[in-house]
This record gives sequence, C-alpha cells and structure tokens, in this order.
Amino acid sequence: MRSPILDYLDEIIEKTAEVTGGAPADYIPELAAADPDRVAIAMCTVSGTVYAVGDAEDLFTIQSMSKPFAYGLAIEQRGLDEVLEHVGVEPSGDAFNELSLDPENGRPLNPMINAGAITTHSLMCTTDPVDRLLTLIGAMVERPVEVDEKVAASEQSEASRNLGLAYLLDAQGVLASPPQDAVSGYIRQCSTSVTVRDLALMAATLANGGVQPNTGERVLGRRTTRQVLSVMASCGMYDAAGDWFTAVGIPAKSGVAGGIIGVLPGQVGLAVFSPRLDAHGNSARGVKMMELLSEDMDLHLMDPGRPARTAVRARHTRRIGEEDATVLVLEGDLELSTIEMIVDGLVSDPPSTRQVVFDLSRVDEVRDVARRTSSNMTTKLLDEGYEVVVVDPDEVLSGFKDSRGREVTWWTPEQLADASS
Amino acid sequence: MRSPILDYLDEIIEKTAEVTGGAPADYIPELAAADPDRVAIAMCTVSGTVYAVGDAEDLFTIQSMSKPFAYGLAIEQRGLDEVLEHVGVEPSGDAFNELSLDPENGRPLNPMINAGAITTHSLMCTTDPVDRLLTLIGAMVERPVEVDEKVAASEQSEASRNLGLAYLLDAQGVLASPPQDAVSGYIRQCSTSVTVRDLALMAATLANGGVQPNTGERVLGRRTTRQVLSVMASCGMYDAAGDWFTAVGIPAKSGVAGGIIGVLPGQVGLAVFSPRLDAHGNSARGVKMMELLSEDMDLHLMDPGRPARTAVRARHTRRIGEEDATVLVLEGDLELSTIEMIVDGLVSDPPSTRQVVFDLSRVDEVRDVARRTSSNMTTKLLDEGYEVVVVDPDEVLSGFKDSRGREVTWWTPEQLADASS
Amino acid sequence: MRSPILDYLDEIIEKTAEVTGGAPADYIPELAAADPDRVAIAMCTVSGTVYAVGDAEDLFTIQSMSKPFAYGLAIEQRGLDEVLEHVGVEPSGDAFNELSLDPENGRPLNPMINAGAITTHSLMCTTDPVDRLLTLIGAMVERPVEVDEKVAASEQSEASRNLGLAYLLDAQGVLASPPQDAVSGYIRQCSTSVTVRDLALMAATLANGGVQPNTGERVLGRRTTRQVLSVMASCGMYDAAGDWFTAVGIPAKSGVAGGIIGVLPGQVGLAVFSPRLDAHGNSARGVKMMELLSEDMDLHLMDPGRPARTAVRARHTRRIGEEDATVLVLEGDLELSTIEMIVDGLVSDPPSTRQVVFDLSRVDEVRDVARRTSSNMTTKLLDEGYEVVVVDPDEVLSGFKDSRGREVTWWTPEQLADASS
Amino acid sequence: MRSPILDYLDEIIEKTAEVTGGAPADYIPELAAADPDRVAIAMCTVSGTVYAVGDAEDLFTIQSMSKPFAYGLAIEQRGLDEVLEHVGVEPSGDAFNELSLDPENGRPLNPMINAGAITTHSLMCTTDPVDRLLTLIGAMVERPVEVDEKVAASEQSEASRNLGLAYLLDAQGVLASPPQDAVSGYIRQCSTSVTVRDLALMAATLANGGVQPNTGERVLGRRTTRQVLSVMASCGMYDAAGDWFTAVGIPAKSGVAGGIIGVLPGQVGLAVFSPRLDAHGNSARGVKMMELLSEDMDLHLMDPGRPARTAVRARHTRRIGEEDATVLVLEGDLELSTIEMIVDGLVSDPPSTRQVVFDLSRVDEVRDVARRTSSNMTTKLLDEGYEVVVVDPDEVLSGFKDSRGREVTWWTPEQLADASS
Repeated sequence: MRSPILDYLDEIIEKTAEVTGGAPADYIPELAAADPDRVAIAMCTVSGTVYAVGDAEDLFTIQSMSKPFAYGLAIEQRGLDEVLEHVGVEPSGDAFNELSLDPENGRPLNPMINAGAITTHSLMCTTDPVDRLLTLIGAMVERPVEVDEKVAASEQSEASRNLGLAYLLDAQGVLASPPQDAVSGYIRQCSTSVTVRDLALMAATLANGGVQPNTGERVLGRRTTRQVLSVMASCGMYDAAGDWFTAVGIPAKSGVAGGIIGVLPGQVGLAVFSPRLDAHGNSARGVKMMELLSEDMDLHLMDPGRPARTAVRARHTRRIGEEDATVLVLEGDLELSTIEMIVDGLVSDPPSTRQVVFDLSRVDEVRDVARRTSSNMTTKLLDEGYEVVVVDPDEVLSGFKDSRGREVTWWTPEQLADASS
Repeated sequence: MRSPILDYLDEIIEKTAEVTGGAPADYIPELAAADPDRVAIAMCTVSGTVYAVGDAEDLFTIQSMSKPFAYGLAIEQRGLDEVLEHVGVEPSGDAFNELSLDPENGRPLNPMINAGAITTHSLMCTTDPVDRLLTLIGAMVERPVEVDEKVAASEQSEASRNLGLAYLLDAQGVLASPPQDAVSGYIRQCSTSVTVRDLALMAATLANGGVQPNTGERVLGRRTTRQVLSVMASCGMYDAAGDWFTAVGIPAKSGVAGGIIGVLPGQVGLAVFSPRLDAHGNSARGVKMMELLSEDMDLHLMDPGRPARTAVRARHTRRIGEEDATVLVLEGDLELSTIEMIVDGLVSDPPSTRQVVFDLSRVDEVRDVARRTSSNMTTKLLDEGYEVVVVDPDEVLSGFKDSRGREVTWWTPEQLADASS
Repeated sequence: MRSPILDYLDEIIEKTAEVTGGAPADYIPELAAADPDRVAIAMCTVSGTVYAVGDAEDLFTIQSMSKPFAYGLAIEQRGLDEVLEHVGVEPSGDAFNELSLDPENGRPLNPMINAGAITTHSLMCTTDPVDRLLTLIGAMVERPVEVDEKVAASEQSEASRNLGLAYLLDAQGVLASPPQDAVSGYIRQCSTSVTVRDLALMAATLANGGVQPNTGERVLGRRTTRQVLSVMASCGMYDAAGDWFTAVGIPAKSGVAGGIIGVLPGQVGLAVFSPRLDAHGNSARGVKMMELLSEDMDLHLMDPGRPARTAVRARHTRRIGEEDATVLVLEGDLELSTIEMIVDGLVSDPPSTRQVVFDLSRVDEVRDVARRTSSNMTTKLLDEGYEVVVVDPDEVLSGFKDSRGREVTWWTPEQLADASS
Repeated sequence: MRSPILDYLDEIIEKTAEVTGGAPADYIPELAAADPDRVAIAMCTVSGTVYAVGDAEDLFTIQSMSKPFAYGLAIEQRGLDEVLEHVGVEPSGDAFNELSLDPENGRPLNPMINAGAITTHSLMCTTDPVDRLLTLIGAMVERPVEVDEKVAASEQSEASRNLGLAYLLDAQGVLASPPQDAVSGYIRQCSTSVTVRDLALMAATLANGGVQPNTGERVLGRRTTRQVLSVMASCGMYDAAGDWFTAVGIPAKSGVAGGIIGVLPGQVGLAVFSPRLDAHGNSARGVKMMELLSEDMDLHLMDPGRPARTAVRARHTRRIGEEDATVLVLEGDLELSTIEMIVDGLVSDPPSTRQVVFDLSRVDEVRDVARRTSSNMTTKLLDEGYEVVVVDPDEVLSGFKDSRGREVTWWTPEQLADASS
C-alpha cells in the first residue's frame, strides 16, 4: 500500500506544473546545461522516515544550501563567539553576491550571503575543510557524498566575483585562510552532489536539534543547530527574507542549482528541487511548492497551534490508606504552559488533604522549566506541611528533589492502586 | 501560597539589578522626566493567567509596542493585500526613524519602523482611528485604556522628524490620510497608557491566535495575527533583528518608554518594563530580562522541543465479536508529525485483520493536515477491503469521511469495550 | 545692421530643432500646461551687452536657477562660515529631491539640491526673504521682478515632498525658520518670473565677480560670487555633475521650467530656455544648446587658452641723459604668468646699466600677485645698486614701493621721451 | 640674483611649518618608513621655467598622482569613447578605496578612485603598459624615470584590497586585462619615482594643453588633456571634491606618499610634497601649502579676472588716398569677449565711410570664435557696400575670407602708413 503522504506530495508536483517561468542559473556553464524540467520533493520526519517523489534520485549540486551546514561546522570548530567575530547575523537587503559588510565592524552581515559564506568556509578548519564538511553531510545522509568536480571546475572558471569578495575580506582581516584557497574551497563545498532525499535528511537533522533521526548520532550541537536555524530564519532566503517569513514561515535556504530546504524545528525537514530560478535566484517552482507545503501542513512557526489545554487530566480526592489524599493525574509534556496550569491550580485552590499525589504515568517528557518550577512548588508544599508523593513509572522525573534538596515520596503505580483500592 | 512562578520572576528582577546603563528617551520631555528605576515583568499564558511582579501597576506609554496592534487593526480594516500595497514586510538595516523606502516600489520597508507605522496608522480606518485602536486594546486588557495626553502633547511639540517622514510618504502616494492628521494620530496611538499586566495580556492574545484568553473574544483574525507575529519576528527589534532572533528567538517589540513585549505562539505573552534605553533605543535591562526569560523557559522558536514520540499509545489485535480486529489507541494531538507516524505504521505493517479500529478517546485535537491525511489513508484501507471503525467520544473527528465521501463505522467507547470483552 | 552674434545664436536654435524629446515638468500643473515649443537663447558679456534670440521676452519661472542667487544672498547675510555650518559643498550622486544629508554632520550636502536650497532659503534673512531676493535679482536685471503667484499656488498644492524634506531638516536642527514658512517661501522664490534676457544678465553679473555690468553696482561680494560659482561648478547640474563638467566645462544651473544658465568667469553669462526636460530634469534642448555654445565659443574652463606670451613688448638699452638705461616696455595684464616672465628675464640676464626703466604705458592691470612680486624684485634691484624708474601714466601701479617701503623714481611718458630723445 | 619667486615659495614653507599633524601612510611598510619631515614646493610656468624650493631633489613615489596621466594615456590609446565605456566621470562621495560602481551601468564612477584607476591601467595598452607610462612621464620631465621596486614590492605584499576591486571589476566585465596583471601593473605605476620638480613639469604640461613647455613636444592631445583636467577638477581630491574646489579652485591630485599636483590651465603647474597625511589621505601640510599658493597667486578658476576691456585701441576716421576711411586699431587677443565688443561697436555705430580698415598689427592671437564672427561681420559689411581692408603683418588672420568666400583687401602696415600720410 502506497502512503497517502506520497500521494499528497505527487499532488504538489502536479499543482505546480504550470510554474514554468525562470531559467536555470546561467553564470555557471555546467548548471546552465542541466535539464530544467526535473522536479522532486522529499520530506523527512524527525523520526527519520523519508517520503520522496519525482526525480528524487537525481543528483545536483548543493550550492548555497551548503551554507547553513558549513556555518554549523565552523561553530563546532571555533566556538560561536569566535565565529561571530568574523561574521554577523543581521539580514541584508542587498543581493547575495554583494559584499554587504557591517559598517560598524567590517564583518560580512551574515553567513548566508556569499561574503559571509566564504568567510565561514575559511573558519571551518585549518586543513581539508571540504573533506570535513563532506563527512558531516555524509553522516546526515547515511552515504558518502562527493564533490561534482565538473561543476566545481566550471564555477572556478567564473570565480572573479567571489575572488573579489575574498580579497576584500582578506583586506578587512576577517578571512582565516588565503583568498584563493578560501574561494576554491568554497566552490568545491558548493559543488557537493546531493539528491532531494539527502537534503530532506539534512533538514530533518536540523529539525531534530542536530541528531540524525535514524542513526541517532549527534552531528551538530543543540545550541549550534539552534544558531544555524535562527540565521536561516532571518537571512536564509535572498532579497526577500521578510516576504518569505510571512508567507512560508519556516527557516529555509535555496541553492542556484534549484534546490530549497526548509526546516520545522521538532517536526520535519523538507527539500524541493526544480532548476528554473526566479529573479531572486531562488527556484521559481520550488518556492511555490514550499508555499503549498507550508500552507497545507500548518507549518508556519507563527501559527499558535491549538489553544493549550490543561495537563491535569484529573484531580480528585481519594481515600488512601488511613486518610484522604489529593491525586493529580497529569499527562502529555510538562513544559512552560502546562506546568503553569498545574501550579496555578494548586496555588489558587490549595489541597485540603495532607497527602498530595502527582501521577506522572501518562507524562511523556518534563522540560527544564517544568522541573525547576516543580521543585519550587514542592518546596512550598513541604513548607506548608503537605506530603508530596510522586508516581513516575517511566522515570521522567528521576532524581527529582525540592529546591532545598529535600526528598519526596516515590510510589509505583501499583502502590497507588493498592493504596486507593 | 504564592506561586513559584512569581518567585521566579522576582529572581529575574534581582538578577538584572546590575543593568543600570542607558538613559530614558530624552527627545520626548515627558519621558525624560520619568523615574528611570522602575522595573516590572508580567507573563500571561494562553489560558489567561497573568503573573506580574515589580511595578506592575505603573502606567507608562505603549510607544512602538502599539505598532503590531495597529498593523493588525489595519489588516482587519483593509485586508492584507491592500495593506501590503502600502507597507512592505522586509527587515531594514537602518535606524527606526529613517525613511527606509523600498527602492523598487517606494513603500516603507515594514510596519515596525516609524515610516511604516505612520502609514499603517493612516490605514486603520477613516474616522477616529485612535479610538478604534483603544477599543481593540481595551478588549485585550479587559479594561478601558486611555491616551496619556500630556505625553502626546510633549511628543507633538517634537514631531518634526515624523512630520518629515509623513510628508515624504504623502509625496510617495502611500499615505491614506493627510500628513498632519496621520502624525498627530500616530503620536496619540503611541501615547496609549498601559501597564506590564496589560501588555502581557495583549501579547498573550497574539500568542493565542487573536483570541483573548479570558473572555474568549476573537479580537484579531488568525491569519492577521500570524502576519503580525511574522513581522514582529523579522522586523520587530530595531537595528538588531538578526541578533535578537538568534539570542532570544521569539517575536518581540520594544517601545521607547521602556517596555518590551514578546510572544511565544501557542504558549505565552511576556512583557517587561525598565525605562533606561540602550544605543538601539531598546530598554537595556528589558533586553537582559527577556534573554533570561527565553533561556530559562525554553522559549526559543528554533529549539526542536522533544524528539517527537509516536501518537500510537498501543496497537494490538483483539477478538471483537466474531473476528479479530486491529485496534490502534491514539493519544495527544494529531498533527503533521504524529499522523505521519500512524500512517507510516499502517503502510509498512498493514493490518492482518479485516476490521481496523481507531480509538480516539485520548486524542485532544485533530489538525487539518491530520484530518486530510486520515481521509486519504481511509480511502486506501477501504479500497483494500478493510472496515474502518472510529471511536471518538469527544467528537474530535466529527463529520469525518474518506476522501471519496464514504462513511466509516462509528462506535462509542462502550461499544468497543462490550465488543472486545 | 544685425549683429553676426545674433545670427550665430539663431543658428544654434536651428541646429537643435530636432531635439524634441522629453516633456515639460508634469508634477507642477501650471508648468505642465506651458507651451513646450518655446525656445530662446541670451548671452550677456561682462561689459553688459545682451544678445537674445527666440522667445526672448517670454516669462517663465526661474525654479532651481534661483538657488545660486539665494545662496549668494544667504552668504551676504550670514557670512560664509555660518552658512557652511548649515549646508555643505559636496556633490551628491542622488537625485535633486533626495534628502542627501552628510552622514558625518547631518547637513544637506550642497545648496543646489532641494534640501540644501530650502535650508539656504531659511538662511537668507529673518523677514521677507523672498522680497529681498527679488530686490537682488531686480538689481541684476535692471527691472522689478515678481513672483508668478499662479505657479507658486500650483506648486504649493504639490509641496509634500519639500515639506517632508523641510521637517526632516528641522528635526536635524539645520533649518533657520519654521518648516512650513521655509517651504512656502522657497516655492515663491522658485516662482520668480524671468526671461532669458534677465537670466543672461544675472549670469553675467556672476561672470563679472558680482558687479552688474551696466549699472556697475556691486550686488554680491567678490568672494561670495566665487563661492557661488564654485558650487555651481561642482554641484550645479543634477545627477550628472561630472558629465556636464567634462562636456560643457562651465558652471551652470538648470530649472524645471526649462531654463539653464551658464557662467564663464570674466567673460560671459549665458541663458537658454526650452521646456521639455530629459530624464535628469534638465531642459533636453537646452543642454544641447549649451554644449554647442561651449564648443563653438571655446568656453571650456579646462582649455588652456593660448600658450602665454611675454608681457615684455621690448627690452632695449637706450641713452637717457648722461648714461645708458635699460628700458622694459610692458603690455597687457600683469598676472602670475606674465610677471614671472619679466622677473625671470631680469634674474637670468641682469641689466648692465644702473638705471632700469619699466614703461607701464601699455599695461592694463596689475594683479596682486604681480604687485607683490614686483615689490620683491625691486628690493633686489635696489639692494644691488640699481635705480628703478617707473613710467605709469594710467596709474596702474599707484602707491607702489619696494618690499621694505622704499620709493622708486616716477617718470611721466614725456619725461621718458625727453630723456631718451 | 635669486628670483623673488623662490623667496616667495620659501615663505610658504615657513608659514606652514606648524602643520605637523597627520602621519605618513602606514599601510605600505616602505612609505611608513619615510622621513616625515621632508617638504618641497615646485612651480612650473607654461613657458617652462621651474621654481623649486625645499627637498626638491628628493625622490618619492608618485602614487595616485599617476592616475591622471594613466587616464590620458588610456584615452590616447583607446579613444575617449571606449574609455568612457569602462570608466565614468562622476564624482564619488565614497572613500578612494571603495568599489563605487555606477548603479546604472556597473562602471567605476571615475578614474581617480582606485577601482577606476585599476580599470584605466588595464586600458593603457596591451603590452608593457608601465613602460609606456614611464616613457610618457619621461617626456614630460626631460629625464628617464623609473619604478621604485622596493616600494612596489612592499605594496604588492599588501594588495588584497586592490585585488578584491580588480576581481570584482573583472566580474563586471570592465577590466581589459587579467586582475592579477592589472593590479601588479597598477602598483608599479604608482611606484614611479619622482621629485616635486618632475611633478611641476608634468602639471605644467597639462596646463599647457598637453605640450611639454620646454621641448615643445605634444605628449597628450589637447582634447585628452582637457578631459584629464576636467576629471581632476571634479573628482581629483578624495572625499572632499567640493570642499577643495571651493577652497582652492584648481584641478589637483594627491598621492599617499605625500605629493599633490595642481594645474591652472594656460598658466602654471604646481607640486608640493610633505609625507604626513590627513584623515582624507591627502598630505596635510601639502593641502595648506596649496591653499596659500592659490590664495596668494589668484589661481582660483572661479575668480573673474579683471573686467574685460575693449580690444579696440582706437577707432578714427582718416583721409586715405582719395577718400575718408574708418580705421580700427585692434590689440591683444581676439576671443569671445573682445570680438564681441568690436562687432558691437560696428553694429551700433556703423562706419560712415566706404572703406573700413582693421589694423591687426598689435593683435597677438585670433581664436576660432573670433575668426568665425569676423567672417560673418565682413559678409554684412561687404553686403552693405563697404570695402574691408585688413592690415596683418604677423599673419594672425592669414587665409581670412568672408563667410561666403569673398576676399578682403590686404595691406601692409607700410601701405597703411603711406596711404594715410
């Protein structure tokens, strides 16, 4: 049985068939020669399932979509602070191939424009930076990836603009390697050969906080990944950051070979491919496909999701052993909004029994904010003379103490059942 | 018993006590005269509970924090398309009081800079635009709000820069009212008198998709709210949009009287207040407080949240009546990532029984993407000869049919319990 | 008998008849209504003769050609230093109606763009600045001039752009009067009604160092006039200062009603008129006429003129009274290049007689540099024992002494004739 | 006997001794090492006499003062039109080492900024451009000049900024040679070793319309020279073109080694030298020296010179042979302003005799405008029945005919004397 999700992605390809405007990038001879009618979509969830339709096995060059990953690698190598000394995080209203230095400190405005990406490339590491990046990408896509040396050679022959940027960056003192090396390395980086399937896995790795969904390998730090996604959100789509963000609402990056990746943190990675470019240098059909995907699948980050519900499934008073106890049955994730509700209920309507039982059997995860707030709440309850009992069969709260280090009482579900029977 | 959340907010105030740099806005005499040592924080969840500490009842002028709400009102009045013809959505690298027109079409770049906000003001409506906005804000904060006429008069006496922008906008043909009216109205808009408590309720209304959390009144459309938040995310914090977004990670807006609001869609609205401004014109201590709040409470939008878990609590084969049936017990929200897992399981491991029962008793909400995908999945199951049974006591899937309009079988939980007993 | 100069100017009109592109300024209704086929040329020498052909008596508004004269008046009123504190002298690459403030000090870049001209207007004087300027222009054109109130009213109705600039200038603190007053005054200044004949006289007054050629009245100081012409040279022609200067080579200023004035210092003032404007806002045919006039009449300031010749008409040794004397017969103007030659001759070939006679009968004028150098030369001659005799019937060197205050011998031409006979 | 002009130049050095601010260029190691206290002035008239004081024989590198001469050579090689396709003539408000491309056509704004100068260098000629320029300069300074290879090597090691510009220019398609070649050639061009005496001769050659004053060799075309001077006037002094032009009033160019040249067309070339630079990169003391020289010697181009006088020395009626004749004794140069006066006199007060005699014995030169106007005037006189007699012993009007090709009567001075005796 074919997944209806694949059917849906097929539909997107059909619906955008009429978007035939634009032309493949013409400044790189090898790209100009590519078949402009190819089209593909891939989606990968944070649990690692890939859905891919169209020319999903066609290889094309990653181009500027390499920038977020090179940025991630540079941060891992140098630390965020050092990278920020060389490249800013401000959106640029200029074209992607403008110098766009920050007037205050002479750094390129962000790592998504060429000047910033060349600088980032030079920061990746001292030797074999491209090999290092290929290794990183390979770990994300679960296969070895290679540079398309024909495309690289073709770009190298038209490299004056990037060389110009690189020498100016060197004059500015922000480049960490010789200009000629930085540019030839950067061009090879951009010539990494990938499929939409690969790109969807790469995007999903970002969506998953830097952990490859299938192998479970952490390939980028959680903070690094957050930084990469933040910069994609504010600076990723050339010349049209605001427009893209209001319309599509997820961090994204395009490449002049026709690819676009998009990331919904915590949920999915997306990749589309169609070589004809619009005036901004983004895949024309690719943009349209991303808009439909975002719209249909409620991906927009500024969408509120459902009105929050209580995480307290039930609160009742029950006879437990010799005395009455107040039992709160909690469920779902305990995060800011849910823990707030629990605490609010306890504060506004204090339990009338000595024992207060928190049943966490149905709780999936406890975020830091919830654990901290629970500690504080527990302190208040203990101070007022309550006994706090926790039922936590899945150990989502293991090691929990109150904010002064005092222990609570731990029961198994069976103990709770026995006690209250 | 005092809520530990209040204790936590008190801590934030203490921790930022050393941030004493900056000075109140000096170009508006009335603001310059304000007590610079006041400080307050308020937080309001999408369920409407407000936590407020510090000088939380002190009134101050809303200033630029009025811009998102005026933008929302203008969209409601004119429709998004007409508003976009007058004001863009692109971030500006310039200072907030620069003209910053889009070179291609002469519109102000976005509604968060003064030029765009004056234009937005002129679009709110033809008569009494300020009254209209006060009514909107009043509905959000559950009390009537007023213009601080002393501050308004003070600003009016120093209005040359805004008048200059307004006349240039008028020359450009983007202003919908006479320049003098637009500026005097805009100044009164900015002089609306609010507390951090008010601001937190306003932010929470945005976080809640435009519905006031306590009254349940829809004061802004869901799409309108999404547009407002998108623009706050990409253009809200002056001169430092990228920086803010990487560091704090939530849409926000500051005002020169010292307030800052922040919104985590679907979760909370935040407001802080401290009159001393940094070089960008943002509250210096306010920025620090927001950074700590975001960090402590995991608010960053680019954080992936927990690795997604299956929404399938259980899948078992059970004797039901005469034959075996496959029962899937679902839970939580059905959205893109969860429905994908359900479908993926059915596709990769098709049920071996004729009957397939979906138990939605523990499901909270079904998003559009999930409903649509379920329809398609159902079609496939029906086509293969399965019988699809839905148990939906809370009617989260009411009216559900397959993608060709075919009915499924509906059972109550009792029917399921009886059948399988 | 008609002057051949008039015939020549007629020729220019004929030769440019094919320049019919462009259109009259359309943003001022009254200007748009003007007959676009009118054409006129006038030329006025520094001796005051006016040659005018075509529609030379047609009145039109002076528009931006008023800027240099308003600048001159402001300098006379406030002093150059104070004016420079408000308006710079740097060329601007921007359009004439851009704000174009100097990023370092917030002043408008120069007085020829609108922002600088509005500022200049506000500096002219505290009361009745327009009347004052009309009086100045009247003194130049030898008739009372008036504001065309219909055009002024028409421009006042479309004044948003200039009001925008004025309010921004006020916010910047560079404006010396209220923005509304500055703009309405500036618009009336620009609506002064003139003919090409008037304009040629005005230009000739500048060419003549600020002295009206016919009346002999000094209407602008010599230094003021030099400043005005310098700014016209570097900033006068919108958007194309370099181009104009290389092609035409004289300071000039155009107005949107179709006029252009040009000034060759020390020689002539020129004015042309044709209402159709090119893309830069200059009269299209007017530019062509100016190019031909410059080319035909050798007006380009960077043309070297003829290789300089000696100012020494003759140097001979002659019996005068009892002894031989060296007689130098000088002629023409004594300026840097000529005095240098005289001195060079004396230094390299010192007189062999005790008496050295300088016959200045044919000398027209002695510039400061020549007087000073002569003083120094005389000191050297006296120190070496020579007697210096000066024959100066026209008193071009009256009061001359050597650099230590020593007297020379003065002879009349008759004494020289008698002595040498 | 020492020339008082030398004394005067010594005075300038003394008067500016207190200008000790600034520092030698520090970005080129060899320049930073130079003795900052050296100072020199040289002046050369269009007749070739050089006055030089101070360290006038010290060699230093020409740097940016080479730009006007390279521009002249490029125009001679390629023609002005082709050069203008590559480099514009618009002043730039940016620093000299900015790219400053014209947004409309992508050309560098002018040949005096580095981007324009590198482009100009590439246009000089296909092989050995530096040798070619050295030959040109050698012809101007009457000695072979050489590149200071130590300085060139020093600059080559810090060439990133210029290489950056060159690659970007190449990407733009305006460079006529490979970027690395253009920059290394440009650096050698700038390292040409000269003295102030050399520079004064070079400036004087420009002042003399392209003819070396002493050898009489035409080294640059007259039109080329005019173009070079025009661009020096509008774009020559970095960052301060308007300021310089209002203050000093002559075309000029500075170099970072501390030299400045200035040219007063038709009169003199000036050169000063002092290595300490101001914030604009111009010699601080050099600027002061140029200001004093301009002020003292009346060099400002916008100074009107003397009010023009009549070129008609005398007009009288005299008995010549059988009848009365009108005799006009002319003198000086016949140019626009003088011929106008002659013609004006004849038109307004037509001769009452049949014969009209023009005595040109005292006339120095007849410019084109005067010859053409005279032809037209003669036609009118002949048409009215006058006989036109010309006395022209120096043949300043040789070959003269009226505008229809009719001959006039030619007399020798003796014939005139005989006839009228």
